Amino acid sequence: MKQHLISAADLTKDDALLILDTAEELASVADRPIKKLPTLRGRTVVNLFFEDSTRTRISFEAAAKRLSADVINFSAKGSSVSKGESLKDTALTLEAMGADGVVIRHSASGAPHRLATWVRGSVVNAGDGTHEHPTQALLDAYTMRRRLGDLEGRRITIVGDILHSRVARSNVLLLNTLGAEVTLVAPPTLFPVAVGTWPCEIAYDFDAVLPKSDVVMMLRVQQERMNAAYFPTVREYSRRYGLDARRMDALPDHALVMHPGPMNRGVEIAAEVADSTRSTIVEQVANGVTVRMAVLYLLLGGSEPAIGNSRTEGE
Amino acid sequence: MKQHLISAADLTKDDALLILDTAEELASVADRPIKKLPTLRGRTVVNLFFEDSTRTRISFEAAAKRLSADVINFSAKGSSVSKGESLKDTALTLEAMGADGVVIRHSASGAPHRLATWVRGSVVNAGDGTHEHPTQALLDAYTMRRRLGDLEGRRITIVGDILHSRVARSNVLLLNTLGAEVTLVAPPTLFPVAVGTWPCEIAYDFDAVLPKSDVVMMLRVQQERMNAAYFPTVREYSRRYGLDARRMDALPDHALVMHPGPMNRGVEIAAEVADSTRSTIVEQVANGVTVRMAVLYLLLGGSEPAIGNSRTEGE
Amino acid sequence: MKQHLISAADLTKDDALLILDTAEELASVADRPIKKLPTLRGRTVVNLFFEDSTRTRISFEAAAKRLSADVINFSAKGSSVSKGESLKDTALTLEAMGADGVVIRHSASGAPHRLATWVRGSVVNAGDGTHEHPTQALLDAYTMRRRLGDLEGRRITIVGDILHSRVARSNVLLLNTLGAEVTLVAPPTLFPVAVGTWPCEIAYDFDAVLPKSDVVMMLRVQQERMNAAYFPTVREYSRRYGLDARRMDALPDHALVMHPGPMNRGVEIAAEVADSTRSTIVEQVANGVTVRMAVLYLLLGGSEPAIGNSRTEGE
Repeated sequence: MKQHLISAADLTKDDALLILDTAEELASVADRPIKKLPTLRGRTVVNLFFEDSTRTRISFEAAAKRLSADVINFSAKGSSVSKGESLKDTALTLEAMGADGVVIRHSASGAPHRLATWVRGSVVNAGDGTHEHPTQALLDAYTMRRRLGDLEGRRITIVGDILHSRVARSNVLLLNTLGAEVTLVAPPTLFPVAVGTWPCEIAYDFDAVLPKSDVVMMLRVQQERMNAAYFPTVREYSRRYGLDARRMDALPDHALVMHPGPMNRGVEIAAEVADSTRSTIVEQVANGVTVRMAVLYLLLGGSEPAIGNSRTEGE
Repeated sequence: MKQHLISAADLTKDDALLILDTAEELASVADRPIKKLPTLRGRTVVNLFFEDSTRTRISFEAAAKRLSADVINFSAKGSSVSKGESLKDTALTLEAMGADGVVIRHSASGAPHRLATWVRGSVVNAGDGTHEHPTQALLDAYTMRRRLGDLEGRRITIVGDILHSRVARSNVLLLNTLGAEVTLVAPPTLFPVAVGTWPCEIAYDFDAVLPKSDVVMMLRVQQERMNAAYFPTVREYSRRYGLDARRMDALPDHALVMHPGPMNRGVEIAAEVADSTRSTIVEQVANGVTVRMAVLYLLLGGSEPAIGNSRTEGE
Repeated sequence: MKQHLISAADLTKDDALLILDTAEELASVADRPIKKLPTLRGRTVVNLFFEDSTRTRISFEAAAKRLSADVINFSAKGSSVSKGESLKDTALTLEAMGADGVVIRHSASGAPHRLATWVRGSVVNAGDGTHEHPTQALLDAYTMRRRLGDLEGRRITIVGDILHSRVARSNVLLLNTLGAEVTLVAPPTLFPVAVGTWPCEIAYDFDAVLPKSDVVMMLRVQQERMNAAYFPTVREYSRRYGLDARRMDALPDHALVMHPGPMNRGVEIAAEVADSTRSTIVEQVANGVTVRMAVLYLLLGGSEPAIGNSRTEGE
């Protein structure tokens, strides 16, 4: 595996499977009396968040702490950054302070990549602009694999604002690596221009793809990002691209409903769908911690086995 | 004891005494060379604060860390909540991430109760609207008991804005459970309508109740909550309901002066009273950490003895 | 050593050398497989920041965590302080909660000194108004000593807005204690009135002092503090007091370039100077963690040897 996790495209199939398999092993830690491993004791993980994202920050924080790392939260709001400090100087500062891992969320696509050129520690992209969010794709793949087994040949439908979605982009890349077949569904104006080069199908008619989907992944409607001129009204969007009970009934019996959260209940997903037994939304959150433990373990933890000979904390 | 601590009304006399006795045991930890117990190692406590309250958050954070729990702070400001995420989705997220305990402060009365219906971990109410603040009542009772012994038959006078005070409500309920007699003193417009159903006396003349009070608890004047139309001026309030040196002299020799903090010196309490030897204000803060350790220990720690056989950290 | 670290003036030469020597010992921790010492296990350090300073806060947080202390961050923004709580009440609260050390940053000169009169724990000044920033001076001295050896008789030139710089003041005091000779360079309006009583030289002509400087320390231009009436334009400042490649060439071969960060590249320092091999700017950040470990160790850790018999965490 590489030193950093910037893009789902950086992961070979072997890399991705190693992360998913390591996560399977680490999942058992949650069942122990003491839910903590000493693996990253003495390592420091910095959460460098230039955008607010409490969920993602907490997920990484919980993952790092379960591996006994020290966690330092750095919110760019009110930091030296507001005094005009460059990302490079921030990077050099964290590097000098001995950060072994930097988890970065930034509004600018490409910021994690630039950060990785300046530090020796491992950089994990926790979402950059409209570019990528690779640990989200990994936790989604982990969730699908736990429910459906091997993803080879599975048909995954991703629905919503593909244009602005780093989640969609990372999922397309990773799922393709893992051998799944992805179909994107959106209004025509909400596809990126380059979508034709992506390794996936595109469709405009949600109802047509439902019966042949093993998974339907609904994206959050980012109302704050929408532009009235090219976007349908929320009501219209919900009618054409929302997942309601009627559409859920058109899915095969084994099919899953996924959402990266936070949901707009009643907009892209109906409350009864979100709370149904097909829904993996809560599992995705739990799996997020496990998968991030696996990523931090593999990037920062050296070559020892994740669980094999290790002792739990306090033993 | 129940799984959650939402209201002082949830506590039987046995529950309350168990917490106070456990706190007595835990108080000795502060005198050890290493002021830390391994009891909650591997457990995660989330501080979920929808209202700012640095004092209360720090008190819970210090309590959890002295029990070796991992602590994650979640300030709702700038979180997914501001993107319109519901309390339910926040709850499911924390649940899925494996929070063993959630300490919640919320401006809406009843929010902790609703939260408790959605999570398996223990919910501790750290103040909800004008409803309750049960750990404040517990630390107050603990402070009184340390100074005065058994509270059975003790007379406690609580003075101030009863209408908006979750501290007053929780104290009335808990003190009644513990056998004390509570008198509330306030301007007529600052009693809640339902105060007649509360297990306590009410009075309008502060001076009349002073000589028969074992404890006088002054409430903070929440100037930001006041409405000029039905509230006296600050000067008038201070003259009629403030505790100055003259009023303190009218108390029995053994009587205590309490305040939940932060104080408005010179408004509800004179500086010389706050700093007198009768004042327990600083003790209350210290006891807050101890009592919250007891609550977290009893809710999250299982059935082992709090101190008995346990080793301190590092031994 | 005293109980607190409020001013560089509080340090005798022996105190200062003890801190620097302890830091040398602690620096080796960063090379261990587990970069953590158990020295301050069970101790609580509170970062009490009334001004934003992510860099300094993170540096103290990392230092305390490497010594296994528990760290509680208290940002005054949105705290009880905004409800009108006095610094004294905040101090008593932290004291009562059992803070063993309080690291304070405050916009008011003298706030750490007042805090120290109210608490039993150790107070460390992390910058107060235009007064002092003693750990910055210590890390600067540590950095110089590592590169140049003993500071006795070394010539240090500090350039910039001396009037508003707590960094300059602390450096002048500490470097004088350590036997170095300091020259301050600034526009006439940016010296404090009392500079004549400081133990240093002053100069207006930067170019004249370059050839005889062992160290040039550039101060950050605090553009937000500048007053157009008595301050040159940024362009003019940069031309007369900025350190560019031409000026760097006028330095002796062994001379160092320092900056406390964050830099304004292109204003007080040219990018090529900041990134040159003479520059210690990144080392200063790393050394900041080490020196703050030494300060916390000596103030909170008792009389045991810093490294001698100690075990690393997990051994």
